[in-house]
Amino acid sequence: MSFVAEAASHQHFESGAPRVLVAGATGFAGALAAHLLWRHPGFELVAVSGRSELGRRLEDLYPRYRVPLEIETLDLDRRGHIDAGVVAYPHAAAAPAVGELRDRGARVVDLSADFRLASLATYEHWYGTHPRPDLLGEAVYGLSELHRERIAGAAIVANPGCYPTASVLALAPLARAGLIADVVIDAKQGISGAGRAFDETTHLSMAGENILPYKVAEHRHTPEIEEQLALLGTDVRVQFQAHLVPLDQGELVSCYVTPSRLVAAAELRELFAEAYAGEPFVEIVDQPPGVREVRETNYCRIHAASDEHTGKLLVFSAIDNLWKGTSSQAVQNLNLMFGLPETEGLA
Amino acid sequence: MSFVAEAASHQHFESGAPRVLVAGATGFAGALAAHLLWRHPGFELVAVSGRSELGRRLEDLYPRYRVPLEIETLDLDRRGHIDAGVVAYPHAAAAPAVGELRDRGARVVDLSADFRLASLATYEHWYGTHPRPDLLGEAVYGLSELHRERIAGAAIVANPGCYPTASVLALAPLARAGLIADVVIDAKQGISGAGRAFDETTHLSMAGENILPYKVAEHRHTPEIEEQLALLGTDVRVQFQAHLVPLDQGELVSCYVTPSRLVAAAELRELFAEAYAGEPFVEIVDQPPGVREVRETNYCRIHAASDEHTGKLLVFSAIDNLWKGTSSQAVQNLNLMFGLPETEGLA
Amino acid sequence: MSFVAEAASHQHFESGAPRVLVAGATGFAGALAAHLLWRHPGFELVAVSGRSELGRRLEDLYPRYRVPLEIETLDLDRRGHIDAGVVAYPHAAAAPAVGELRDRGARVVDLSADFRLASLATYEHWYGTHPRPDLLGEAVYGLSELHRERIAGAAIVANPGCYPTASVLALAPLARAGLIADVVIDAKQGISGAGRAFDETTHLSMAGENILPYKVAEHRHTPEIEEQLALLGTDVRVQFQAHLVPLDQGELVSCYVTPSRLVAAAELRELFAEAYAGEPFVEIVDQPPGVREVRETNYCRIHAASDEHTGKLLVFSAIDNLWKGTSSQAVQNLNLMFGLPETEGLA
Amino acid sequence: MSFVAEAASHQHFESGAPRVLVAGATGFAGALAAHLLWRHPGFELVAVSGRSELGRRLEDLYPRYRVPLEIETLDLDRRGHIDAGVVAYPHAAAAPAVGELRDRGARVVDLSADFRLASLATYEHWYGTHPRPDLLGEAVYGLSELHRERIAGAAIVANPGCYPTASVLALAPLARAGLIADVVIDAKQGISGAGRAFDETTHLSMAGENILPYKVAEHRHTPEIEEQLALLGTDVRVQFQAHLVPLDQGELVSCYVTPSRLVAAAELRELFAEAYAGEPFVEIVDQPPGVREVRETNYCRIHAASDEHTGKLLVFSAIDNLWKGTSSQAVQNLNLMFGLPETEGLA
Repeated sequence: MSFVAEAASHQHFESGAPRVLVAGATGFAGALAAHLLWRHPGFELVAVSGRSELGRRLEDLYPRYRVPLEIETLDLDRRGHIDAGVVAYPHAAAAPAVGELRDRGARVVDLSADFRLASLATYEHWYGTHPRPDLLGEAVYGLSELHRERIAGAAIVANPGCYPTASVLALAPLARAGLIADVVIDAKQGISGAGRAFDETTHLSMAGENILPYKVAEHRHTPEIEEQLALLGTDVRVQFQAHLVPLDQGELVSCYVTPSRLVAAAELRELFAEAYAGEPFVEIVDQPPGVREVRETNYCRIHAASDEHTGKLLVFSAIDNLWKGTSSQAVQNLNLMFGLPETEGLA
Repeated sequence: MSFVAEAASHQHFESGAPRVLVAGATGFAGALAAHLLWRHPGFELVAVSGRSELGRRLEDLYPRYRVPLEIETLDLDRRGHIDAGVVAYPHAAAAPAVGELRDRGARVVDLSADFRLASLATYEHWYGTHPRPDLLGEAVYGLSELHRERIAGAAIVANPGCYPTASVLALAPLARAGLIADVVIDAKQGISGAGRAFDETTHLSMAGENILPYKVAEHRHTPEIEEQLALLGTDVRVQFQAHLVPLDQGELVSCYVTPSRLVAAAELRELFAEAYAGEPFVEIVDQPPGVREVRETNYCRIHAASDEHTGKLLVFSAIDNLWKGTSSQAVQNLNLMFGLPETEGLA
Repeated sequence: MSFVAEAASHQHFESGAPRVLVAGATGFAGALAAHLLWRHPGFELVAVSGRSELGRRLEDLYPRYRVPLEIETLDLDRRGHIDAGVVAYPHAAAAPAVGELRDRGARVVDLSADFRLASLATYEHWYGTHPRPDLLGEAVYGLSELHRERIAGAAIVANPGCYPTASVLALAPLARAGLIADVVIDAKQGISGAGRAFDETTHLSMAGENILPYKVAEHRHTPEIEEQLALLGTDVRVQFQAHLVPLDQGELVSCYVTPSRLVAAAELRELFAEAYAGEPFVEIVDQPPGVREVRETNYCRIHAASDEHTGKLLVFSAIDNLWKGTSSQAVQNLNLMFGLPETEGLA
Repeated sequence: MSFVAEAASHQHFESGAPRVLVAGATGFAGALAAHLLWRHPGFELVAVSGRSELGRRLEDLYPRYRVPLEIETLDLDRRGHIDAGVVAYPHAAAAPAVGELRDRGARVVDLSADFRLASLATYEHWYGTHPRPDLLGEAVYGLSELHRERIAGAAIVANPGCYPTASVLALAPLARAGLIADVVIDAKQGISGAGRAFDETTHLSMAGENILPYKVAEHRHTPEIEEQLALLGTDVRVQFQAHLVPLDQGELVSCYVTPSRLVAAAELRELFAEAYAGEPFVEIVDQPPGVREVRETNYCRIHAASDEHTGKLLVFSAIDNLWKGTSSQAVQNLNLMFGLPETEGLA
């Protein structure tokens, strides 16, 4: 697709802005990261790479994103100095690319699971041999609301998975207060969560008019959540279950917490209000949030309630899985890493 | 809408078949009940009543259902002998209509909550004064798989709510075995669950691309589930939470059970296989069921798994909320009540 | 997926019923044909073949269709006597299979384009070399409403394309009356029209929230429509354009006819009423039909109007693309071919 | 809904920016206009009015739009000086509000049909008595691409309907060249086109899985299109037909033009390229556009093709009905009226 009029599609970034590259820009996550960085006033997006679709313009694959750069192979020699890279490769393929960028002095936000887990053993249980275990020590877990300071100084930031993002934000206030005796997380996500995969899970005539639990009693997301809760002082075995529902972008996690002691409604409200006071992208709301409310934003909306009948605490957390769950959170991290206002390019 | 050619739309029922009436046929549940009875070989659908749309043919409101009867006011004097009625009125409006039918000797399946609860106090807590408490003793809870014999002889059958249908079928084998120490039920349902209501919850531009928890920490469905589990020997406070997701028909409940003792995978499999051996409409499946698999059927598909990481038991139960959750279950009950094969008109 | 209880899934056909086979049952069209034949009282479905998924049961791929037969390679030697075959292969792959069945004396309904066109030259322009041009003379175009008698005696029936089905039914009364001077057909179809293809046109995150014209100014469907109109006495160059819209099953064609002379509303009404009087599956309606009205039925609903402002005639024709547009129409044809009531198994 | 953290939600406009008010902000169009103006650097949104939901914050009704202003009754006395108003009232209710704003010296963009038609007789035929015919002479038709200069100086701008926007942009190059002998416009639109109406056309269980032609052979949109084509030198009776399809935002018009003379592909391409060279919001594309490509943008994407088989010209035009079709086009007009860059706040 080519346009007669292209005049409008130029980027306006500050001169001297950090030069950024997105590796793996043909997938949903990389393409959105490229879109957000292209229109970001504080970064210069200099290249988008892919392993297919070479030579096509990214805006031909993703017209709405309007990024006119051509997709190229990842070739750091050719690209000159790069200040930062966003790596949107699958697990295990990501680590070598992260390493290559790191070796040349670029700072990296990695969207894969390769650097999210502190435990190498846990990683290798789920994903096989780690290609660059030497770099694990340099990586910081990129949930800005919990690790803001460390992210600012990190060489490598492991962008959280979308399920852990919504889940850990929902549970952090309770975990920090030592209130979680037991927890069930029931997650529902739109089809974009399956990415650009073309199969039974994404075909509209199969995914439409369906609700489908998947990966029952499997646990790739669980250790990431459990590690973060442990850092907040709570060791608990998390029951996590994902479901696909027929929409495009959006994710809701419903958390059912058996508290370690009775928690009154007022205390619960206070706990969440305090935990996220001043947070630019977390909103504590009075009503259970629908995912439409946060679509195509970096916001996470959280509603907590206490159930008198059962004594349980209920926490609902809504994000856009592609935005706060993935790509806009990557930009939030880049803002922190380069000393820009955290909300720059995301409001 | 009127057709030039109507020749094809005649019903073929056995002569001498029970004469049935559907009261409240303009709503989703009543209309589907009328559709199923119109094409049923064992019943004669003689009238459809409504409180609006009088004089219109039901097939003009619901073209796919192809029921050519005119919608009339409920007037039992005019209608002659009626053997059975399906009442699809809202809660509290249903009981008087049930009573009127009963008083004339008709047997009734009531789709409302008016006769579902054994406890009058619980009913009145949630729904206000009961219009016909005198009839409570005659009512049988219409979950065929649990109360088949009593339904067969009942004057009034209280058709279960769609959430309790899926939930109780999912949990009954565990409840009977005394295995439920604690349970969280996370339910997801399509928009038809909201009925013909025209508001924010049903508008495609609001309900579409959304996932919405609703009635948080409210408990209208909970007592119905708890009463049924109690009848099976398990007293437990059930944590139930409903969500609306953007499809038309379909309901999945995901049950997270903390067992009273360790349950191995093989035992779990055996338990569910035995519990539903020979049941025509419950299928125990090896994979988590999607609701598409049971769309527009009277089937309930159940998958149970045990999670080694947490020790919890997971049970997923998929139904079509309008079919097994409401109207086809009403027909299943009518079959039982009139001595017809349980699957007649439903295969 | 295996069921504990399978007792309900047996087919009840008349003994001595014609033995039928579906070749290509793993695609949407073949699977639905198998479903309809499995529950059909007048046919015995003896085998379903595929070129993939061998050994799996068809109900594992299409749970709702509940056909418990195993998918096998097409091996006529092994299968014993076959009275009829439904071939659901892609264009050019179909003709050899049709030939093989024909050579053994089976009668065939072919869902592909291989036998739809009377002109071999036109076929080869669009589809390449015809694998079995020798059989063209035996094939009858399977639009029951136009060619009922010839279908009854045919060895090979070429099931119409879904677009020609809706279009020719919409235009036939006008074509027969010589009233079409010019015609534009704007067609809209759900995603199931793209079949089981896994690509950009079917991915929910791409096809959802989209309206997409495709194959602009291409004409594979046009000759089929033009040939049928010519048989009715009207030679006209048809402007046909297809669009994909985000639903599963459903197809609407909107026809804009410049009439050869002024046609009053009453005459138009009369023309359509007469044309389809007594037709079991064509309904002339007073309001423009929505495709929901005919979903999962063999009906075609047609509304014709005359526009005083422009003098044009407007005809809207709604079908389910997978049913009347493909598989249930194949069953309608089989009914005719084997002397069964035309509506058998389809009401 | 109230937030604990509201710090992020402040507007940053230039001081001394024109003060704007949106009347009728509770509907889809007004709410989006308020959203776009709230985040617009060149305007100060000072008030949002409504006829219901008084006292609620607009962001409680439309969380994604994040406009924290309270909905108030339209009371110009109380509001101080207003430079501009966007009126999003229904037809006939709009004109008095436009008049009131105009009488106090504010410039107005009216989203209703009240000032779109040059012919008062035509207006009154479709909409009844015009409440302020005295103002008709002051109104300019707000299709920026055709009337840029006159809009810049206008007191009242009549924002085009969404169907005329897409249609006139599609046909203008041909109309100007005198090439349209006859034209059929087949339009498809998402459910948001029906607005916040709660009824059968918007209920997900009725609008979903449907394709519905509506207002057959009615002509409210036709005179607006015909008047604009006439201004370009082409008098033609336009055949226009609208259809609802199951998505939220998006509109495609497919135009079938019988040309007054043969037009070669190269000439056609040239014609459209020239017509929209330099236009910031019209893109001529090589492939038929899907509406997803322009979702939530002010772009109109147009693809023109010539069909050798029929000699007809095909033009496809895709917009977001709520954006370029309504509210972002209103902002484009305001930019022109106040001397701001035309793309300000819209890129």
